[in-house]
Amino acid sequence: MDRIFNPKSIAIIGASSRAGSIGNMVVQNLIDSKYTGKIIPINPTAPEILGFRAFKTVNDVTDDEVDLAVYAVPEKFVVGAARDCSKKRVAGHVVITSGFSEVGNHGPERELVEVVRASGGRVLGPNIVGLLVNGCNANASFAPYLPYRGSTALVSQSGALIIALDGTTYLRHFGCSSMISLGNMSDINFADVIRYLTHDPTTKCIGLYIEGLHDGRAFIEAASACEKPIVALKSGVSAHGAAAAASHTGSLAGSIKVYDAAFKQAKVLRAENLEELLVMSQTLGMQPPMMGKNVLVITNGGGIGVLSSDAAEVAGVPLNTAPKDLQDQLYKCMPSFGSPKNPVDITGGTGAKGYEDSIAIALRHEWVHGLAVLYCETGVTNPLEIAQSIERAVSGAKGFGGEAKPVVCCFVGGQRSVDAAFYLMDKSIPVFTEPKSTMSAIGALRRHGINVALRKVDTPFVPFSDTTASKQRAIEVISSVRAAGRLGLTEPESYEIFTAYHLPMPKEVLAKTEDQAVEFAHKIGFPVVMKIVSPQILHKSDIGGVKVNIKDDAGVRAAFNTIKQNALKAKSDAEIHGILVCEMASWGKEVIVGSVNDATFGPAVMFGMGGIFVEVLKDVTFRVAPFTPAVAKAMMPEIRSYPILTGIRGEKPRDVDALAQIISRMSQIAADLANEIAEIDANPVLVYEEGKGCCVVDARVILKDKTPKAAAPAHGH
Amino acid sequence: MDRIFNPKSIAIIGASSRAGSIGNMVVQNLIDSKYTGKIIPINPTAPEILGFRAFKTVNDVTDDEVDLAVYAVPEKFVVGAARDCSKKRVAGHVVITSGFSEVGNHGPERELVEVVRASGGRVLGPNIVGLLVNGCNANASFAPYLPYRGSTALVSQSGALIIALDGTTYLRHFGCSSMISLGNMSDINFADVIRYLTHDPTTKCIGLYIEGLHDGRAFIEAASACEKPIVALKSGVSAHGAAAAASHTGSLAGSIKVYDAAFKQAKVLRAENLEELLVMSQTLGMQPPMMGKNVLVITNGGGIGVLSSDAAEVAGVPLNTAPKDLQDQLYKCMPSFGSPKNPVDITGGTGAKGYEDSIAIALRHEWVHGLAVLYCETGVTNPLEIAQSIERAVSGAKGFGGEAKPVVCCFVGGQRSVDAAFYLMDKSIPVFTEPKSTMSAIGALRRHGINVALRKVDTPFVPFSDTTASKQRAIEVISSVRAAGRLGLTEPESYEIFTAYHLPMPKEVLAKTEDQAVEFAHKIGFPVVMKIVSPQILHKSDIGGVKVNIKDDAGVRAAFNTIKQNALKAKSDAEIHGILVCEMASWGKEVIVGSVNDATFGPAVMFGMGGIFVEVLKDVTFRVAPFTPAVAKAMMPEIRSYPILTGIRGEKPRDVDALAQIISRMSQIAADLANEIAEIDANPVLVYEEGKGCCVVDARVILKDKTPKAAAPAHGH
Repeated sequence: MDRIFNPKSIAIIGASSRAGSIGNMVVQNLIDSKYTGKIIPINPTAPEILGFRAFKTVNDVTDDEVDLAVYAVPEKFVVGAARDCSKKRVAGHVVITSGFSEVGNHGPERELVEVVRASGGRVLGPNIVGLLVNGCNANASFAPYLPYRGSTALVSQSGALIIALDGTTYLRHFGCSSMISLGNMSDINFADVIRYLTHDPTTKCIGLYIEGLHDGRAFIEAASACEKPIVALKSGVSAHGAAAAASHTGSLAGSIKVYDAAFKQAKVLRAENLEELLVMSQTLGMQPPMMGKNVLVITNGGGIGVLSSDAAEVAGVPLNTAPKDLQDQLYKCMPSFGSPKNPVDITGGTGAKGYEDSIAIALRHEWVHGLAVLYCETGVTNPLEIAQSIERAVSGAKGFGGEAKPVVCCFVGGQRSVDAAFYLMDKSIPVFTEPKSTMSAIGALRRHGINVALRKVDTPFVPFSDTTASKQRAIEVISSVRAAGRLGLTEPESYEIFTAYHLPMPKEVLAKTEDQAVEFAHKIGFPVVMKIVSPQILHKSDIGGVKVNIKDDAGVRAAFNTIKQNALKAKSDAEIHGILVCEMASWGKEVIVGSVNDATFGPAVMFGMGGIFVEVLKDVTFRVAPFTPAVAKAMMPEIRSYPILTGIRGEKPRDVDALAQIISRMSQIAADLANEIAEIDANPVLVYEEGKGCCVVDARVILKDKTPKAAAPAHGH
Repeated sequence: MDRIFNPKSIAIIGASSRAGSIGNMVVQNLIDSKYTGKIIPINPTAPEILGFRAFKTVNDVTDDEVDLAVYAVPEKFVVGAARDCSKKRVAGHVVITSGFSEVGNHGPERELVEVVRASGGRVLGPNIVGLLVNGCNANASFAPYLPYRGSTALVSQSGALIIALDGTTYLRHFGCSSMISLGNMSDINFADVIRYLTHDPTTKCIGLYIEGLHDGRAFIEAASACEKPIVALKSGVSAHGAAAAASHTGSLAGSIKVYDAAFKQAKVLRAENLEELLVMSQTLGMQPPMMGKNVLVITNGGGIGVLSSDAAEVAGVPLNTAPKDLQDQLYKCMPSFGSPKNPVDITGGTGAKGYEDSIAIALRHEWVHGLAVLYCETGVTNPLEIAQSIERAVSGAKGFGGEAKPVVCCFVGGQRSVDAAFYLMDKSIPVFTEPKSTMSAIGALRRHGINVALRKVDTPFVPFSDTTASKQRAIEVISSVRAAGRLGLTEPESYEIFTAYHLPMPKEVLAKTEDQAVEFAHKIGFPVVMKIVSPQILHKSDIGGVKVNIKDDAGVRAAFNTIKQNALKAKSDAEIHGILVCEMASWGKEVIVGSVNDATFGPAVMFGMGGIFVEVLKDVTFRVAPFTPAVAKAMMPEIRSYPILTGIRGEKPRDVDALAQIISRMSQIAADLANEIAEIDANPVLVYEEGKGCCVVDARVILKDKTPKAAAPAHGH
């Protein structure tokens, strides 16, 4: 990929002398950006373009190698040009041209990729703004200039956003290593780019603008393997926005809850909006991760101090009071009416020296894991002097452990503060203009720090020992259900699969006759629960198909007949497999564990508290399957109703370890049978007190519909 | 107040020729800002300062009237100078000097206010940066210059923030009518300033930075009476932040939930952070309220279109698809691959004309209530031309109803976009640099629109007819409890108060003997509930002091004795008033209605669903008491668990009208007895199906402790 993202020679297909044409702009931009490699215009007639010798086709190029070809020709010429370029073994095919799958024109896009891949090349695009790489000074795009130079790579599915942000990087002194436009992602996708950037020495942080991933699993894999911080803005998260995204890029916008899960699992930090993407990816490109929870705020204004404390809580890094010895040291840097707690208020009259001294102390103190330095412009202090003192203090702390602690600043003021901020930004100390962004940057550094620590203890998912047998048994059940022409499993069928994977369930036996029911009830032990089993009856309780707490033979006989009658009353032609006689589970806290088959990420498991918490409050969390019990346990505190499991109103805590086992096993079922199962629903799972385990009381499995769909309408119109 | 905030003459107490002194800066700033009134330096020795004749004291001033005095003398001279100024009948005393109550020095601050108020004058401060008024060009402060000229008044408890934001207004072209520093609020407070600005012709919107209000009720009253939009940023909302705020201004930070309630009731829009305060107060100073729910987004980039759709949902103004006839008209302004839905994507190649035409169409269409115009800077369009076309289209729509519809823009790009944005800002069309702020601005305009509509239907709280009798009865009960040396009421005592206010409660009678209990049970009708009544036993259930579902005489006798024994077993010296025999209420949905006596706002009523929803999820909402049933009804959808009342899982909706009556009546109790009651707890209130009312099953009242506290430690140290 280095030939693509760090090319030594670039051919411009459709290079042109006509000002205003894309083919002209790309050549001019490469010249203006002082591209360090070779510029090779391709034009069927012109011998020379903008001072560079031009060639009729790429195959006429006399050089041995052409690393990159940038396509600026109309759609109808693209595939032909790709054949030429492929003969020449061009590595990267940057197709700016639009009019492909984004307007329903899928055929030529597929052909383009086939031709290029056959030669070992890769396609970037089509429908992109191009490629902007600061490392080799290549503005191979129609964006006006290379972005402000720095360490963050921005990768975007929207080309318009790249052009617009190009200018923004200068307004903020937001340094970028490269800007990569992905467009239709016919070939090179986010995973490919992440894999490249993982090893790109000029990139310290990766920022992504995602409308929809095509291959969620490849993304998770690539991002998980990347130790550099990755920040992603996923758009199309509102109901209406999802519709807009689909019409825009034609990509499927997976459920945002599953995206959220995938980002967590891949250790990708999610930005909620464009501003956050910029704030976070800028900061993470400049500063080290925050490896502990204590952030110290140093400020010259009480007002922004309080605001930063509020913002810290929102950003997930709530302030703690500084320890006494640190307070004592800091108190020497301020007048008597200052405050050495946290925020540390060195007061408005305190100038550069107060900042320098207090920062030096803070960075050397082991309690401090990260530092936010706030400055309100005043009449008596000079912002640039403050900035210089901050820089001196930060540099000075190197060698005393200070280099491992992140520093983020906030300068509130006018133009002088902006200039001072730029001074710091250019020295890789991020500065924002209000406390919210500053603390949100600190929050991002902390989240990255947690990820860095997690990487060290993460263990891969190990299937439970008997997975082959379990899977085989499940497939047998599924095959027989499919053979019967059904997609919904009856309760005994679901039970078979769950028990094959060793999920704890109440004993249950299917009785065909009244006498059998009595016999089974005795074997199981009273009291029992009895339920109708019929593929045609899904909502058993609603039609009187369930009887609980049956205590004796007479009760079993009565229930058997009543249930059967109720079933036939509800649906006279119902095919009745029998009546299920079940052990009556003792009551525990109800939780729900389910699985879906997400369009983007495949099987994913959901967890939430039972009843109203899921149905009304939507208080659920997801993970992409399969995952370990440790991951399952980490899901639990993410729901608001989690305290129900830890014990409220004096109740004992619940057996969350056993629950984690169940959730993890469910994730294995969902993953093992991803090709077969559409949805699983274990509702409720009863969770008992600590050490007493869980019980899956009701299980429902729905298979994927594999019958061929009616032919899709022809593309293009 | 006009003499204070629009003064014709300003005396500077402590005016000085010494550069760098506050007394020098204030005179110089008034000169530099081209103050339109008279500048009167006061200095004990100098005959002239910076070219103006100086006087020894204010009383030596030869002019008839001095409107304003700005104090720039050390704390020890302030009260003396105030006596002089008061003799001269100075209207406004702007005390920049610090060293008063903010450092515990309360005495001189109190004296200052007494002296000034006795002469009919008012004190602004002390401990402030001064007063900046664009209307009369008065920079009567030590901030460097007047803020960028415009329509928003910024009022801040933090002086440092005013100086810092002064410069920021120029960076954003954020227009201000004035900046007012409140500092210690010894006299003039937020309510006073709001009352003045309500009628100030130069101010269209009021932005507040609040650390803590001293008199919450006065604030609500003043803000409620102001029809101009008010935006407030309340700081100190995090646990740690509240502590920081208290140490900073010495003001009590009331519970943020009650602040939230007060803001709603006063129709004040709350900003969550400094950036939001600026975005919202800037926008509301420039644009009319949005009087309906339909916002149309016009964009040249699909990416920011989707992001704006996401941001719209977060901002509470989710996008809706434009109606067919509007789509048809809009589709004529874009190439065939554009989208006329919502966001309306006129595509990147479309320039000024596309914007002008589509905006003209949108503003003239009755479906559209507000417009967001987004622009991504591109290589082929000129941002300034786009800005000019937007301005033309907006101006052109005037006379077609367009003037009543707000327009907010978003320009993402580089310096050219910034310049274009300034062009629009100076014509009162707000522009932001990313979709989040843009849609948050639209959200603020919509919230203001809803407030404007609400003002027309709002009715004042009318006490229930028998309030005098109710209150008298309650006071009798409370007096007898106080006479008994208690603060906690027993259940029959609370019952007395609740029934005096006609709250629906189960029948209940206190039985002193077993025979009485049987007799009362027959009167009430079986089944009954029986409960211990003892001031020493608060948690009745825990000690076996409650028996439910008692069905006959034998049951009553058994319960009477068991309860009594259990009580004595739990607390052998418990004073037992008797055993309460109660009607057993049929079961309904449990809600909690309570009241607190907030330090800032006084009595406030809380509402939430019973049990875990309040205890674990903190899913509650507040209003300051008293309030109407209509307000009570508006509280309900604010809790997440509200669907439980509207009917879930096929249940019938609950009697929310009856519940609203109860909540409103509770608010009257809390307000009527604000001096007596600390807390009320009606838990649970059972809510029956629509038309079937509610029942307050358990009532608990705690009185205010009126015993004198130990003397507070002396101030100052």
